[in-house]
Amino acid sequence: MSTTTDRYTEASIEADPTVPAIHIVRDFAATPAQLLRAHTDPDLFSRWVGPQGFTTTIDYWDARTGGSWRYTAVHGDGSDGMEFGFRGCFHEVREDRIVQTFTWEGQPDGVALETLTFTDLGDGRTRLHAVSLCDSFEGRDAWLRSGMETGVNDGYAKLDDLLAHGTVSESASA
Amino acid sequence: MSTTTDRYTEASIEADPTVPAIHIVRDFAATPAQLLRAHTDPDLFSRWVGPQGFTTTIDYWDARTGGSWRYTAVHGDGSDGMEFGFRGCFHEVREDRIVQTFTWEGQPDGVALETLTFTDLGDGRTRLHAVSLCDSFEGRDAWLRSGMETGVNDGYAKLDDLLAHGTVSESASA
Repeated sequence: MSTTTDRYTEASIEADPTVPAIHIVRDFAATPAQLLRAHTDPDLFSRWVGPQGFTTTIDYWDARTGGSWRYTAVHGDGSDGMEFGFRGCFHEVREDRIVQTFTWEGQPDGVALETLTFTDLGDGRTRLHAVSLCDSFEGRDAWLRSGMETGVNDGYAKLDDLLAHGTVSESASA
Repeated sequence: MSTTTDRYTEASIEADPTVPAIHIVRDFAATPAQLLRAHTDPDLFSRWVGPQGFTTTIDYWDARTGGSWRYTAVHGDGSDGMEFGFRGCFHEVREDRIVQTFTWEGQPDGVALETLTFTDLGDGRTRLHAVSLCDSFEGRDAWLRSGMETGVNDGYAKLDDLLAHGTVSESASA
C-alpha cells in the first residue's frame, strides 16, 4: 500500500485487514514541513479540511504535544442547520508525525486514534499516511460507509490548490 | 465479563477476542466519584499506581478534557537506574468515564487509547472497566506478556488500602 513507486494523486482509502483501522495514503507536491504546517496551522487547516460547500471554524486549537483542538463545520451559510462538531487532543506533534484523538460530537462516545506520518519522497513530493484506529469493526465499517471519501478527496484537492498557489510556507513566520 | 453478579475483587485481565485491546475489570469498595478522584487527583494517583517497590513522581498533570499528563516511576531509591516514563493526553474526563492516550517512553511510537468507565454496583461498590486499545495484535500480546498484571494487581491493592483508610474523598475539597 505504501510503496513509493506508486503515485497517490488521488487518496487511497482502505480498510485494514486485521485491526479496525482505516488507512489513507495521499501524495502531495509539498515538503514534509509544508504538510506538517497544513495540519497544525489553524488558519490553513480550516481552509482545506472537509467537503466542498462547508465552512470550518476553529473553536480552539493548540497543535503541540499535549494540546487539544475543536472545530465546527457548517454547510453553506449555515441556514440549513447542518452543523458538525469535531474535537480531540494532540498526543504527539513532531516533524514527521502527528498522533491525535478524534471524536465527531454527533457520536460523542466514539473515539478514533489517528496517526499521520509524512514521508519525503525525494522529488519535492511528500506522502501522507493517515491511520484511524477505531474501537470496533462495526464502527470502522460504518465510518467507511458514511461517505467519508467525499470529505477526504475534496479536502485534499483544496490543499493541492493552496500548495499550488504558494499559500503553505514551511514555517509560520514565512 | 462485566455482569454485575460476579465479583472482581481481583482484577480480570483479558485479551479482546476481536480487536487488539486488553480488558481489565475490577471492583472497589468506593463510589464512582471516589474512583474518578483516585484517577484524576495527581497526589492520590501517584500513591497507588504501579507495582510495589516503585515510586511514582508526577511531571505534569492536567486531568481535564483536553489536558495532558506525564509521570515517571523509579524502583526503590532509584540507585539501580530503573526509571520508566509514561505520558499521554486526556481526550475526555467526565463523571463516569476517562478516555486518554498512553505511551511508555521506552517505546515512544507505541500509543494505546485507554477508556476507563466507572459503573455504580449499587451496594457501595463500583466496577472499573479499563479498555486499552493497541494498534496491533503483536503489540497487545507483547504488553500482556510483559508482566503487566503485577503492576495492575499491586496498584489496585494499594488503592484498596487508600479507600479502606478513608484517604479518598469524593471531591478535592473534602
